[in-house]
Amino acid sequence: MNKAPEAEILSVGTELLLGHVTNTDARDVSEMLSRIGLNVKYHSVVGDNPERLRQCVEIARGRADVIITTGGLGPTCDDLTKQVLADCFGLKLVRNEEVEKSLYEYIRTGRGLTPNTHQQALLPEGCTVFPNSCGTAPGCAFEKDGKVVVMLPGPPKECRAMFERSALPYLRRLSGEAIVSHSLNIFGIGESAVDDLFADEMNAMTNPSMAPYAKECDCLLQITAKAENEAEAEAMIAPVRAHVLQVLGEYVYGEDVDCIEEAVMKLLREHGRTFAACESCTGGDIARRFTELPGASAFFLGGAVTYTNAVKTELAGVPEALLAEKTAVSREVAQAMAEGIRERLGADLGVSVTGLAGPDGDGVHEVGTVFIALAAEGQIFVRETHMGSTRTRSFIRRMAGNHAFDMLRRYLSGMQVE
Amino acid sequence: MNKAPEAEILSVGTELLLGHVTNTDARDVSEMLSRIGLNVKYHSVVGDNPERLRQCVEIARGRADVIITTGGLGPTCDDLTKQVLADCFGLKLVRNEEVEKSLYEYIRTGRGLTPNTHQQALLPEGCTVFPNSCGTAPGCAFEKDGKVVVMLPGPPKECRAMFERSALPYLRRLSGEAIVSHSLNIFGIGESAVDDLFADEMNAMTNPSMAPYAKECDCLLQITAKAENEAEAEAMIAPVRAHVLQVLGEYVYGEDVDCIEEAVMKLLREHGRTFAACESCTGGDIARRFTELPGASAFFLGGAVTYTNAVKTELAGVPEALLAEKTAVSREVAQAMAEGIRERLGADLGVSVTGLAGPDGDGVHEVGTVFIALAAEGQIFVRETHMGSTRTRSFIRRMAGNHAFDMLRRYLSGMQVE
Repeated sequence: MNKAPEAEILSVGTELLLGHVTNTDARDVSEMLSRIGLNVKYHSVVGDNPERLRQCVEIARGRADVIITTGGLGPTCDDLTKQVLADCFGLKLVRNEEVEKSLYEYIRTGRGLTPNTHQQALLPEGCTVFPNSCGTAPGCAFEKDGKVVVMLPGPPKECRAMFERSALPYLRRLSGEAIVSHSLNIFGIGESAVDDLFADEMNAMTNPSMAPYAKECDCLLQITAKAENEAEAEAMIAPVRAHVLQVLGEYVYGEDVDCIEEAVMKLLREHGRTFAACESCTGGDIARRFTELPGASAFFLGGAVTYTNAVKTELAGVPEALLAEKTAVSREVAQAMAEGIRERLGADLGVSVTGLAGPDGDGVHEVGTVFIALAAEGQIFVRETHMGSTRTRSFIRRMAGNHAFDMLRRYLSGMQVE
Repeated sequence: MNKAPEAEILSVGTELLLGHVTNTDARDVSEMLSRIGLNVKYHSVVGDNPERLRQCVEIARGRADVIITTGGLGPTCDDLTKQVLADCFGLKLVRNEEVEKSLYEYIRTGRGLTPNTHQQALLPEGCTVFPNSCGTAPGCAFEKDGKVVVMLPGPPKECRAMFERSALPYLRRLSGEAIVSHSLNIFGIGESAVDDLFADEMNAMTNPSMAPYAKECDCLLQITAKAENEAEAEAMIAPVRAHVLQVLGEYVYGEDVDCIEEAVMKLLREHGRTFAACESCTGGDIARRFTELPGASAFFLGGAVTYTNAVKTELAGVPEALLAEKTAVSREVAQAMAEGIRERLGADLGVSVTGLAGPDGDGVHEVGTVFIALAAEGQIFVRETHMGSTRTRSFIRRMAGNHAFDMLRRYLSGMQVE
């Protein structure tokens, strides 16, 4: 391919059209493709219907170089996607012995045989088979008539894993050049501020290139380089990364990480520390987010969700007199919550959040007023935020959690915390 | 329209193609359309590019009766969507004085003027204007050449609100008949079992019709009726609902509710009760889910996230000897956690979860083994679940939370809990 290849993601599944499931596969695959510089121009979704799928494939082959399908590979859907794609490109489905063998293995380990299991071993002739590390249905890829077709399973975990392990190397090889992309994860400064800081450079750069992207409560700066091989592309990225790090400094919390809590877990592991959380308006979201990460139990001892004053006293030892004097939404109570949970659970570090996530206020503070505290060995830090009453409850909760994780990160990195 | 109209949702926004944002608008609009019996056949996503958007509109008008766009209406995108859709259907954009007046109002209240604010008052000639209750960009709808076009803003909150308030009545009116749909929410029995129970009836029914849908950890049965007016449609649904309730009985936790925690909040309000939670493997997700609901603080006092044995003792008073004898993943410890948190926080009811969400096991229990307990006035209930080690961490956590909410629901409704 000489010009930059363009891709279409075609997702197959009636459940998507009924609104029962969100199309996270298209998001995930798009994000991963953008990292290797492959431009996604269209997403399409169609139901489990061969004729409509066929029409969608015809449209996609007319406007894209790379067609990536998600879904419709499982044994219950009669391998709709493989059959239709193979037909559209004039290929036969043939029995793949290796896949059949591994399916038998899978069945022998007791994970269930369905009447259509055998069909999963039928694959387009001459295709590259992608093994499924989290399920049974294999994916595959082929090139025909100047087009590249990649088929991935629908369950998000299987789709992501197969894309990363099999599809990404396959697509990289095709492009004939190495495209490498890294994202610097940023918290504490907005996307538009990042844009302002680097606007002139970004306009002047073509390869490597640089672009900021807003995420829900933080943002990232993506640096992409194209070269003859990966090492060369990495070498082109290095000075740009160094420059960005010099300008943004402590605002950068990681590189290519999914979320700030992942960066925090890495630091807790490096420094051998544990933490505990005392949450009021975040309602357990800090604990929930951190414990989504496998292995969290080595670093997170536990927490309290203290939705009333009495519970703040009972579970985190916040003095009743302090609550009466300062009210629950105050710097002093945030400090007492963080210190209290740290001591009570015997953790190295304690974080706390207290504030108003709305929609109702307390008649004193504006919705969006949140205090976040970090108690460490002999030190206590507090941030006071005013996110504004136009923010949604869910934004305020997530942003407050990000502040707590950011304070942990900065403390563990020896940076200024407040 | 004589045959059942078919719809395509066309979302506009480069951020969707870059994978920075998930297309929740398509999911939300699909779900709401299915409630009024309008069949969504395709979703498409295209970037902020007039030429590609034009091509997508041409495809959509060739295969759908109703085209619903989301995104590309804001002042920063030069009203891309309105301009292209109007062009495609041979309509001019004309200044709408009423919209202009309301934009000036909005600006006067200090919410910011952008250079392109005026453009938002340009709308396709003869269209029906949809006011934006949560932002500035108005939406609109028109009929031309036998097609219906509806344009909604991209921000999910604005999109949902405008769809419910303006687009839904507009589309209902069009159909010339009333289509009413209700969903019975079901927990404790799977979609395929529901399917089996009603298969014969569902095959025989056309109007009203009935269909089961699987959600992540529960399912629903949707009953839809078409009639000359809403009252008539409701009257047709009533006997079907009564029959389903008779067959499924206590498995039905609500009607047209978003989630089981919403049903629980309604019951807590009716019965004037409060609850508290002690969570191990759910890691705060029960607290987080319940406190996502505005007004949760009147019913949820707080909770403990007890990720180690010591914390189970410290925050919920679980005896050390019991933990040593039975281990953390046991019926007895689940009981002690629920009873402990209930007593300590002075709640009417206490729920607890302890088990293995994986991916790592404890060498004794299989991943997916989870005990869920409910402590009430003088009574204690426990469920033991084995979800299977092939389930994801996030599924196990969500399902365990659903069990806790289901036990609360059944207790408050005077049903069998275990």
